[in-house]
Amino acid sequence: MPTEIPDIVISRLPVYLRALERLTQEGQEVTSSHELGRRLGISSAQIRKDLSHFGGFGKQGTGYKIAFLKDQLRQVLKVEREWHVALVGAGDLGSAIARYRGFSDRGFHITCVFDSSPEKIGRKLGTFQIQPITELDAFVKSQNIKIAMIAVPAEHAQQVAEILIKAGVKAILNYAPINLTVPDSVHVQYIDPVLHLQRMTYYLSD
Amino acid sequence: MPTEIPDIVISRLPVYLRALERLTQEGQEVTSSHELGRRLGISSAQIRKDLSHFGGFGKQGTGYKIAFLKDQLRQVLKVEREWHVALVGAGDLGSAIARYRGFSDRGFHITCVFDSSPEKIGRKLGTFQIQPITELDAFVKSQNIKIAMIAVPAEHAQQVAEILIKAGVKAILNYAPINLTVPDSVHVQYIDPVLHLQRMTYYLSD
Repeated sequence: MPTEIPDIVISRLPVYLRALERLTQEGQEVTSSHELGRRLGISSAQIRKDLSHFGGFGKQGTGYKIAFLKDQLRQVLKVEREWHVALVGAGDLGSAIARYRGFSDRGFHITCVFDSSPEKIGRKLGTFQIQPITELDAFVKSQNIKIAMIAVPAEHAQQVAEILIKAGVKAILNYAPINLTVPDSVHVQYIDPVLHLQRMTYYLSD
Repeated sequence: MPTEIPDIVISRLPVYLRALERLTQEGQEVTSSHELGRRLGISSAQIRKDLSHFGGFGKQGTGYKIAFLKDQLRQVLKVEREWHVALVGAGDLGSAIARYRGFSDRGFHITCVFDSSPEKIGRKLGTFQIQPITELDAFVKSQNIKIAMIAVPAEHAQQVAEILIKAGVKAILNYAPINLTVPDSVHVQYIDPVLHLQRMTYYLSD
């Protein structure tokens, strides 16, 4: 079943999950595609169609049981479990990432930090000692880590990606402002806030 | 002309611009839709089609002059000028945002920082003094600021958005992990790295 679900649908499921978590915080137990749609700016028809890919989540008219739907989405997305994540880059950005509590709160634990700069290696970042990038391969393999974040300057990002991929990493969250070239078997997502700003300025008058 | 360009096309233009800036750094002066496509994982046909919305950027076979294409894209996206940006939230995340050089390097200048916490107000963040959120309305209006970033806890984000919109902000980059409800005249983009991780774990085996 999973292979048939279009990537564009998969991309919306975390958004649905986040909205459902928010509704739970607000004390709600049941929701509808209309309520979700209103909150998310997505049509209720789209939401029903997306969720129908997985079958049996609810029926139009009766609403969705939030707890059940959250569990289902977490299982589909494989986020009902905890993931270990490697962080490469311990500069300003890497430090901010390491300190951000939003990752571990939602099941993603940064369990190692690597850098190539001699003055950073051995220092503490959060609860972890910064390790030399030369030890990345052995460490990531030994811990069977599949997810990594890249927070190094653009000019080093591709090289770091290749080291990660060789070590077995299959999913990369890239904060460096550059597109990476990776094999089909590896997934990359990009965080570049400037791209988001640039696509909004188009719509600004004056 | 601008109103006819689909949002999905607009969303790809900053990605093209970033790739062209990178090619310039590497010393290149001419590129092709094939080269761009290879770098970006987008089909060359798609790239030609996207760029054809603006007309006259280049011809198949002869390639694109990078400097010219960059200028055109910057004009279309309105990023050939400098933009002032208000930042709301001076916690860990807001501090990291304020320190991130990638914004001003690319024309987005954070020129004021607001927070509601009495112990933060008056402190320096970068070169700016943190101002009380109660002064946001007057300040943003007086400076005619149209772009803001929200880096406050999720439970305050909607309220902050409403204050910003009332002050005339038309584009919001939201780092709080919550979807905002805004009028059609206001654009919102979201930065939530966990959503990006969650859509990759779906594809991870084991």
